[in-house]
Amino acid sequence: MHFGLVDEIIVPSCIIGLLAALVQFLIIKKISLDPEKQELSTSLTGEVPEKLVPEIYAKIMDGAIQFLKVEYAICCLFCLAFSLVIYFLVSWGTHSSTQGALTAGAFLTGAFTSMLCGFLGMMIATYSNARTTLACAKKGYTEGFNTAFRGGSVMGYALCSLGVFVLWLLLTFYRTVYPEADDWEILFDCAAGYGLGGSTVAMFGRVGGGIYTKATDVGADLCGKVVAGLDEDDPNNPATIADNVGDNVGDIAGMGADLFGSFAESTCAALVIAAAAVEGSKHTLSAAGWDAMLFPVAISAAGIVICILCGFVATNVAPVKVEADIERVLKVQMVLTALLMLPVIYYLAVLLLPAHFRLEGVRLNEDGIQAEIHGTPFKAFICATMGCVGGLIIGLVTEYFTSHSFIPTRELASACKFGTAVNIIQGLALGYKSCIIPVFVLSSAIFVSFQLCDLYGIALAALGMLATLSCGLTIDGFGPISDNAGGIAEMALFNPEVRRRTDALDAAGNTTAAIGKGFAIGSAALVSLALYGAFVIRLRVKTGVNILEPTTFAFLIIGCMIPYWFAALTMKSVGKAAGEMVAEVQRQFSKVDSKGKTLLTGSTELKPDSKTCIQISTQASIREMVAPACLVILSPLAAGTFFGVQAVFGLLTGSLGSSVQLAISMSNSGGAWDNCKKYIKNGFSEDVELRYTKNPQTEEEKKAAPKAREAHDAAVQGDTVGDPFKDTSGPALNIVMKLQAIVSLVFAAYFAAINHGHGLIQVQ
Amino acid sequence: MHFGLVDEIIVPSCIIGLLAALVQFLIIKKISLDPEKQELSTSLTGEVPEKLVPEIYAKIMDGAIQFLKVEYAICCLFCLAFSLVIYFLVSWGTHSSTQGALTAGAFLTGAFTSMLCGFLGMMIATYSNARTTLACAKKGYTEGFNTAFRGGSVMGYALCSLGVFVLWLLLTFYRTVYPEADDWEILFDCAAGYGLGGSTVAMFGRVGGGIYTKATDVGADLCGKVVAGLDEDDPNNPATIADNVGDNVGDIAGMGADLFGSFAESTCAALVIAAAAVEGSKHTLSAAGWDAMLFPVAISAAGIVICILCGFVATNVAPVKVEADIERVLKVQMVLTALLMLPVIYYLAVLLLPAHFRLEGVRLNEDGIQAEIHGTPFKAFICATMGCVGGLIIGLVTEYFTSHSFIPTRELASACKFGTAVNIIQGLALGYKSCIIPVFVLSSAIFVSFQLCDLYGIALAALGMLATLSCGLTIDGFGPISDNAGGIAEMALFNPEVRRRTDALDAAGNTTAAIGKGFAIGSAALVSLALYGAFVIRLRVKTGVNILEPTTFAFLIIGCMIPYWFAALTMKSVGKAAGEMVAEVQRQFSKVDSKGKTLLTGSTELKPDSKTCIQISTQASIREMVAPACLVILSPLAAGTFFGVQAVFGLLTGSLGSSVQLAISMSNSGGAWDNCKKYIKNGFSEDVELRYTKNPQTEEEKKAAPKAREAHDAAVQGDTVGDPFKDTSGPALNIVMKLQAIVSLVFAAYFAAINHGHGLIQVQ
Repeated sequence: MHFGLVDEIIVPSCIIGLLAALVQFLIIKKISLDPEKQELSTSLTGEVPEKLVPEIYAKIMDGAIQFLKVEYAICCLFCLAFSLVIYFLVSWGTHSSTQGALTAGAFLTGAFTSMLCGFLGMMIATYSNARTTLACAKKGYTEGFNTAFRGGSVMGYALCSLGVFVLWLLLTFYRTVYPEADDWEILFDCAAGYGLGGSTVAMFGRVGGGIYTKATDVGADLCGKVVAGLDEDDPNNPATIADNVGDNVGDIAGMGADLFGSFAESTCAALVIAAAAVEGSKHTLSAAGWDAMLFPVAISAAGIVICILCGFVATNVAPVKVEADIERVLKVQMVLTALLMLPVIYYLAVLLLPAHFRLEGVRLNEDGIQAEIHGTPFKAFICATMGCVGGLIIGLVTEYFTSHSFIPTRELASACKFGTAVNIIQGLALGYKSCIIPVFVLSSAIFVSFQLCDLYGIALAALGMLATLSCGLTIDGFGPISDNAGGIAEMALFNPEVRRRTDALDAAGNTTAAIGKGFAIGSAALVSLALYGAFVIRLRVKTGVNILEPTTFAFLIIGCMIPYWFAALTMKSVGKAAGEMVAEVQRQFSKVDSKGKTLLTGSTELKPDSKTCIQISTQASIREMVAPACLVILSPLAAGTFFGVQAVFGLLTGSLGSSVQLAISMSNSGGAWDNCKKYIKNGFSEDVELRYTKNPQTEEEKKAAPKAREAHDAAVQGDTVGDPFKDTSGPALNIVMKLQAIVSLVFAAYFAAINHGHGLIQVQ
Repeated sequence: MHFGLVDEIIVPSCIIGLLAALVQFLIIKKISLDPEKQELSTSLTGEVPEKLVPEIYAKIMDGAIQFLKVEYAICCLFCLAFSLVIYFLVSWGTHSSTQGALTAGAFLTGAFTSMLCGFLGMMIATYSNARTTLACAKKGYTEGFNTAFRGGSVMGYALCSLGVFVLWLLLTFYRTVYPEADDWEILFDCAAGYGLGGSTVAMFGRVGGGIYTKATDVGADLCGKVVAGLDEDDPNNPATIADNVGDNVGDIAGMGADLFGSFAESTCAALVIAAAAVEGSKHTLSAAGWDAMLFPVAISAAGIVICILCGFVATNVAPVKVEADIERVLKVQMVLTALLMLPVIYYLAVLLLPAHFRLEGVRLNEDGIQAEIHGTPFKAFICATMGCVGGLIIGLVTEYFTSHSFIPTRELASACKFGTAVNIIQGLALGYKSCIIPVFVLSSAIFVSFQLCDLYGIALAALGMLATLSCGLTIDGFGPISDNAGGIAEMALFNPEVRRRTDALDAAGNTTAAIGKGFAIGSAALVSLALYGAFVIRLRVKTGVNILEPTTFAFLIIGCMIPYWFAALTMKSVGKAAGEMVAEVQRQFSKVDSKGKTLLTGSTELKPDSKTCIQISTQASIREMVAPACLVILSPLAAGTFFGVQAVFGLLTGSLGSSVQLAISMSNSGGAWDNCKKYIKNGFSEDVELRYTKNPQTEEEKKAAPKAREAHDAAVQGDTVGDPFKDTSGPALNIVMKLQAIVSLVFAAYFAAINHGHGLIQVQ
């Protein structure tokens, strides 16, 4: 075995990525948390904020590690058990225990890489949050922004580099077992386990983290704001630390694992499709060699380098100077990386792909016979471009619907005047409406890339959308880091100006996080379709998927229902876990010290016990994440085992179609409610009745105050409803569609082996 | 042409149905509204309620007629224009202007029959409501129940009989044009226009009526309860009359038209499928003759007689004696009619169908070649049974999730303790969860009947579910009649005991109405699948519907999005129309008379101006119903015209799968919120903190009062969110799936004629 051109692209890119992450980390590390090494300031209550910071920082760090420990323990147990299932079923289905072992090995590798990435991401995010607060306090916007941005980018670069590098290592190692192009179909089948591993951990991360973050958020909100009239992040509220921990475990570890899964899966889908043998043709990709096969991995690798170069623009070339710069700089990052990727993809396609190649497709020609793909580098480039540009458009539409700079969220704010119910109705309608354009964009991308390169085109479109993943992850990490920085500023009693700065970072981060969610959903849809196609190709179905078969159609309806079932489970879990949290906080608030004072009436003896809160939400979220995860993983297994592959086809089709809509509408309703609340609370509206102030000053404000308070309360209720929408159920639906598809792909041989794919209940 | 066995079943059944409706009407008519002919009572304020009743009655009647006039004017215009479109496109597609004219004629016949049915239903419902109030006031439960039940049954019997009879007349007339069995394929193609007509009017009725009823309900709630602290149905609230009108136009005319459409469409689907020629086989249904072909119509006709017999049980054999009887009697009706239908269906199948018959199917066999159906009367019976029993199960599950006698709604009530947001989250989760069992039931019905008789089986299952339609409509009509009776009791200032009685009727009606909605959704899903199948068969597609074609999959995603788009439009419309209503009511409340008093402070000069309210909501709902209706009707037309039949396949698949879930979850969330509010408001809970009373008496109640009020307010907000869910968007989604499918079926020949079904943008 020798190393080819593609290896010379992939390996150096990954090393550059890891080095860049290290450099960014070292720059952040320069900011010291030690109060003795800083110029101290004084808060309004006479405390020294710098002295409080390390303590709060340590609590958040402890809480996050504690959660991850428990979560990963469960994950490890599950993954080990599931790898045995994979080993036995795949060995049985393929009559080859080597293949079973390699698939199980790839699964474990993917799972552990994902956990490692999640852990690193979380450590660096918690490491950066307090430092962002200090940077904002001491130096202003440029340094504050850069610290949070660097924190995000450490995660972005490291995660992508590790993901690509480990996959490359795995493939190179497996190639020693299957060195011949004729065997590559088996090789890449085994490698699909990598995607399954990544996605399984992502499911736990997204669901567990999502329940955790929203149980603490809803819980803290309910008892803080509603029961006791406290501010967000009030240090007396024992749930506040847990809330900050939640941002890290949900938005960082969860989101990171989700996107890592998407990347791993779309690569695997592309590889499996590319490796599928075309009978009688020598012009296949696998015949063209290793370089051509690994073109998809090369795109991801090159993306890392592009993102590093663009990141330099944000921190050094055109840095943030004033508040208004923040959102612009982040948006420039997104657009710039996407545009720069296009020529790179074109260059890679011409360099690595043969001038003409044939692949097996799933389309049928006029005579009902399976059509062949006739691909060219240019066609492949167009497919990736559809994904890359499509993702950008979906992101921008998401921004339009969720940012309070635009009409939809402002209209929603006006609806708050009529009370909570109208706010909820209009917010739901907004979410439904926000599906329209993204769905048209997605279906155009599907249509064009499917036409050009069949399912290989879909996989390339997914990879194109994920090519700028490092940049996406940077921005995704930026949000929660700033959010946490704000929490720390509040709890450490910094001057309100510091909080204002972190809030400005957070607000921009929120908007861009919504864009990131749009990307995540769009890419998930493409990835699942590619995996679904890989599954069909892998099964060698020559007659297409006839939806008008009894089994297929019956399971199509069931597939459409799965996302609703999943959403019901996760939303109920949030409610339940939040209830436990409220009970605990109420218990603490009702405790009376020796002087007859409580936490809220200024007791000096009692301290808010954040540890118990963290424990409660950790246990609740771990307990509650099992059922939804099992639903998603077991449904295709059960369908295939009992009713055969036609049932799985129906299930995947329905679940994909239904998840996309529900995910988009939930994420956007939630985002809009959140920003609608910010719009009213921060007094951005020109309508005085929509400007909430705690202490109305002018005559006009005093007159409008009762109405403004009512609108504000309605907005807060909307935000609370939106919390599980946008951070638990909505984004987890991405993983529902992806995970079901990759489970099907990995177990394809097993399904096919049961009564020739007709299932135990031999359906004809 | 001679009349056969089947004609001797259909015609007498319809005549019996019409006579039974007349008899019931004459019985209701005996109750006089004239105060001079009654024993008068006195209200607490000294007024004579009987004297107020005729005035209120007249106002509701006027408002309802006024709305229907405007709505039907728009409908007539639209239908006339659309019939021209049908004429030209079908003539062009089939190269036969006769066929175009007959299809357009059938369309107009269906549309006008639907309008006639809606009008009759509404007249009888408004005719019965005041009489129900009087019956409750003078005679008690038995008479009150019977009056409302008879009112509903007049609508049920008349509507079904008319629907079946007009269809039979149409078919018999068209048979003079196509007397040969070889031409019946064309005959039934033309007759499909009847279903389209019924469904088009249903769309306007459901959407227009749905927006009307909820705009008035939300509007009246918002200004009545929230702004001015009035009771529901307070006579001072000028929106109250409009609210009562809304119940009639939405729940009676809308629901009636919806179910009439389902019935007409499923019959048409069965006929088109049955008429499809099988090459080289003589054992087809059409070869077997008229009797065999019209078996589906015979089921519907026989259903009318069964329901009349069972209705006799409710009013005479085992009538309602005490409050607790009401729900039981209604439920017995549902179960009894469904069970009695089974032997009748079996008997008809054996009588009318040949012992063996062959039909064209859409399934493919192992070699990818279209399979033939080998049917028997027993198989046909099983298919219809799956529908009939499946509908019953779906109904009972719906009841479980929405009635406050069961755990889900009680849990929802407990969640109200944590405020509005938690109530909304849990209510949405409840709706999502309530999809699970109905979807499994539906997919089992689809699976079994598809296996047995291919798409003919699906059509039979749909007809089986709709066989007891007269009973379903009776119960559906019963609800709004009792609701209105309560409103009249309140407005006419009857003794509170009278209101208590009408409320008991209304509560039972609410639960059974939820069951009716379950039926409507389930049957709509089966109907649309049958129509979709008829469309595929009509196009002579021999290779099945391969979902993995670029066009098909792209449009599958778009199809899944259509219901969301539709829901967004309708929900926004409700919000907008309700806003206009609130503004008008506030204008009236702020008017000051010569003594400086307003409506609310006891002005004797000012009268609530309900006429303007009715005008406003009429105009708003008519204006707002156009966009959603056009979306549904034009989307398959546009897809087929530009992208060909593959696009339409995708669109129909996606829309069907997605609509079912959204419709079930919306209807059930809404129903649960409504009953949750009733549970708290009426003090049914054992938990004193969930028992809201206006004037707390005991020490315990006084202590719990603030918490109870909070829970009550949260429940009211939930109910308001649920209003457009359960009465506008949710049920209208039934029509989305059905209408898209029948539009495709009617225009099948047109689609096929454009570039051989590849559309103007020649997609290959």
